[in-house]
Amino acid sequence: MTFNEWTRSVLARTEAALDACLPPADLEPARLHDAMRYTTLGGGKRVRPLLVHAAGLLTGATPEALDAAAAGIEMIHVYSLVHDDMPAMDDDSMRRGKPTVHVQYDEATALLVGDALQSQAFIALSEAPVPPVRQAALLRELALASGSIGMAGGQAIDLASVGVALDRASLEKMHRMKTGALLRAAVRMGALCGAEAPDSLAAAAPTQLGQSAPSSLAVALERYAAAVGLAFQVVDDILDVTADSATLGKTAGKDEKAGKPTYVSLMGLAEARQLATELQAEAHAALAPFGERAARLAQLADLIVERVN
Amino acid sequence: MTFNEWTRSVLARTEAALDACLPPADLEPARLHDAMRYTTLGGGKRVRPLLVHAAGLLTGATPEALDAAAAGIEMIHVYSLVHDDMPAMDDDSMRRGKPTVHVQYDEATALLVGDALQSQAFIALSEAPVPPVRQAALLRELALASGSIGMAGGQAIDLASVGVALDRASLEKMHRMKTGALLRAAVRMGALCGAEAPDSLAAAAPTQLGQSAPSSLAVALERYAAAVGLAFQVVDDILDVTADSATLGKTAGKDEKAGKPTYVSLMGLAEARQLATELQAEAHAALAPFGERAARLAQLADLIVERVN
Repeated sequence: MTFNEWTRSVLARTEAALDACLPPADLEPARLHDAMRYTTLGGGKRVRPLLVHAAGLLTGATPEALDAAAAGIEMIHVYSLVHDDMPAMDDDSMRRGKPTVHVQYDEATALLVGDALQSQAFIALSEAPVPPVRQAALLRELALASGSIGMAGGQAIDLASVGVALDRASLEKMHRMKTGALLRAAVRMGALCGAEAPDSLAAAAPTQLGQSAPSSLAVALERYAAAVGLAFQVVDDILDVTADSATLGKTAGKDEKAGKPTYVSLMGLAEARQLATELQAEAHAALAPFGERAARLAQLADLIVERVN
Repeated sequence: MTFNEWTRSVLARTEAALDACLPPADLEPARLHDAMRYTTLGGGKRVRPLLVHAAGLLTGATPEALDAAAAGIEMIHVYSLVHDDMPAMDDDSMRRGKPTVHVQYDEATALLVGDALQSQAFIALSEAPVPPVRQAALLRELALASGSIGMAGGQAIDLASVGVALDRASLEKMHRMKTGALLRAAVRMGALCGAEAPDSLAAAAPTQLGQSAPSSLAVALERYAAAVGLAFQVVDDILDVTADSATLGKTAGKDEKAGKPTYVSLMGLAEARQLATELQAEAHAALAPFGERAARLAQLADLIVERVN
């Protein structure tokens, strides 16, 4: 199977898994369920589901288990976009080429869609066909990555940093939480789905304050996720100034206009591109011990760095 | 121990469990963590934690396991209040006798506090000292009760019903989701924490569309929770017209002013009071098979019906 065929098959599986997991659009409250489907289905790059499925190849995970993990993590990502787009946050009207939820429906619905999608993500994980000890580990992993020491905390730091001259270390910390935590969770959760994952990977789920115990798989995934997570953000910042809104499916030039610090504003376009290339090599190096089994993860690192939207 | 001593001890345990579970106020992002603590600690009737601990007495649950379940469910309740009070929803400025989060901090912080508290609730459950199969069941139970077929769905129906002449059946359905789902989850989760709970109770966790399989304990808890959940709402509606804001710790007369249907507007004050008394008796009847072990649950039904705020 070529990489393109593989990504297409994961995208199709993920769409089907999300469709099956979301309540039907005519189930009461129908407006809420309709809006949850509107914002979740039929769009998005599905980077996190791709990482879940690629990481699962390292530990012999079944596609069905990976579907549940992929659907769960994607719903967390989607809920964060819905809330992030609201007037109280970024106040954006376009997302994935469509009007945002609060524009298409209303603000109260957008609030509840985000809230309900977060719950639905954990419902999805609770249906993963893996032993209960792995189910509990998946749920913990996603909750930690989503909360105040992960994604939501990163958004809080991002909000507080508008117009503030962040240095590179602070910018990295913010992104490590805002987008990095969920990308890291994606590779860890994919690996956790497989029977060949060492039990220590589940035990090494970060505690509340972010420590984690090492295992060789955990260490390699950590290194890969750190490189890919940072690369993802650097490329996002590059695209924000080099791509147009139609290609991005969201408003281009937004961060610059909002006075948000970015890798481009901090180090310039050429150096940001150089950094992305270095991180791509670092991601590949992290995967070296796993040989062919890690080929999809390596190709995903390339996709993340070389994407155009 | 008298009932008063018992409730005081559960309240103290719950406060300590919430305090231990929430990230420290000086951990970055400090403003977010400070706001999470501001809204969660030091207030509230803690009805759900009380139900968790009382139900745990039926199955020999350890206090430590019940603390985790109680903290988790209370954080879901608190997050829903924070979002419900926001301008896009009820736009309320007082809660538990203090300014609401979006007033005390700002709207974006209120949004993220709610989001992060929901994640934190699942983190709390993932730390419950129970076997993994029970941990997974607790997580699933709470996710289902919180989402679009539970609490968040009930809020969506509530929003859509302002100024609409709901009949009693529709009103009941809305409340069964908006507040009933979480109260039901509280008694089921308390019971699930105990080793004496039949495995079928975990298996009987509702599926996505709300079915549940029967066991004698599950059936009794279902009947008790239905009565207490409805009684809770009927009494809320009575207090909304009979109590003052200072006693309630929130704005009194709000539902009436907003044109929201209530049991009082639907059936009158005297009949609403009569209904609350009948539901209290129904809750007691449901507990009859369990004798003395169910004494705290019975007393909680009394507390819920006879409360003044």
